Amino acid sequence: MSEYILPLERLIEQFAKLPGVGRKTATRYAMAYLDWSKESVDTFSDVLNEAKTKIKRCVVCNNFSENDLCPICMDATREAVLCVVEDPRAVMSLERVREYKGRYHVLGGVLSPMNGIGPEQLKIKELLSRLDKENITEVIVATNPTVEGETTAMYLMRLLKPLGVKVTRLAYGVPVGADLEYADEVTLSRAIEGRRELM
Amino acid sequence: MSEYILPLERLIEQFAKLPGVGRKTATRYAMAYLDWSKESVDTFSDVLNEAKTKIKRCVVCNNFSENDLCPICMDATREAVLCVVEDPRAVMSLERVREYKGRYHVLGGVLSPMNGIGPEQLKIKELLSRLDKENITEVIVATNPTVEGETTAMYLMRLLKPLGVKVTRLAYGVPVGADLEYADEVTLSRAIEGRRELM
Repeated sequence: MSEYILPLERLIEQFAKLPGVGRKTATRYAMAYLDWSKESVDTFSDVLNEAKTKIKRCVVCNNFSENDLCPICMDATREAVLCVVEDPRAVMSLERVREYKGRYHVLGGVLSPMNGIGPEQLKIKELLSRLDKENITEVIVATNPTVEGETTAMYLMRLLKPLGVKVTRLAYGVPVGADLEYADEVTLSRAIEGRRELM
Repeated sequence: MSEYILPLERLIEQFAKLPGVGRKTATRYAMAYLDWSKESVDTFSDVLNEAKTKIKRCVVCNNFSENDLCPICMDATREAVLCVVEDPRAVMSLERVREYKGRYHVLGGVLSPMNGIGPEQLKIKELLSRLDKENITEVIVATNPTVEGETTAMYLMRLLKPLGVKVTRLAYGVPVGADLEYADEVTLSRAIEGRRELM
């Protein structure tokens, strides 16, 4: 369905490579891009190039980093607790809370046999090697509460438990501030299951 | 709210320049971009640069073009009817129908005093100069059925009518294949207003 002139078709095709972007949205982005000033376009291009060269992965936790070690892994005051997450976005969400004082380990995805992602594609070997090296006392599995995140959490539990390390999972329940009416059934059932005695 | 390392923040900021993209979506795009292969990134960058240099505007109709004249304006078989649209996307939508055999004129927007867009910011002078030069017999005003599109259409009607050219507007009505139940009241009232006798 080549409708526009070729360079515009190619431009649309490139924007359509972004996640969740179909042809219609890609066309919208392309039109907007063509309206940008020369300075805007140059900055866009420069920043994208710079990002690809400057943004690396921390060799310890696999989070984004400008240096070999990320600021969190370099911070000696961080407790010997390891929070295992899927991607760097989860690290940011948890850091925003300013309550957790431990370290992180970014898996780089979740187990997904359908997409050919097994344990070897995730940073699991690296996770195991940190347990001893860093004298980790607890691993908090904080993969997302999706089917694949759950499967990955189960896999990690079974892998880590025999090693004698304490393994925990984030609590499920009704989101604070939300109305019970809008909570889905699975969440509600988990909230009942995980109920705590008031003291 | 600088949370990520600086080059990543800058990357997110650039993606957030795209229309309708907030910080969350921009972050998603940035993460996906960082996962692309070197070839993918290079192609993206090349195509974006190429687009900005190769895609110009047709000097006659203001549609996107690789040359001074777009293929439609170069086509001598096109009838002396002018369809006035807001942007190149509308040209594509109408061309897809394969029913219209006339020419186009891309205004490059709609009148919007709030945003400082008056007649001088649109290609209206160029439209007027085409009427005589191309012996135009009819101008079809095909701006979008929005408030601003309507205002622009009214403005053009008043400007063109005194010049003796036939001016028409696309028909309003219930979209074909849609359920009456889902049509909004304004559309329905326009559909009743514009009803036609069956023969």
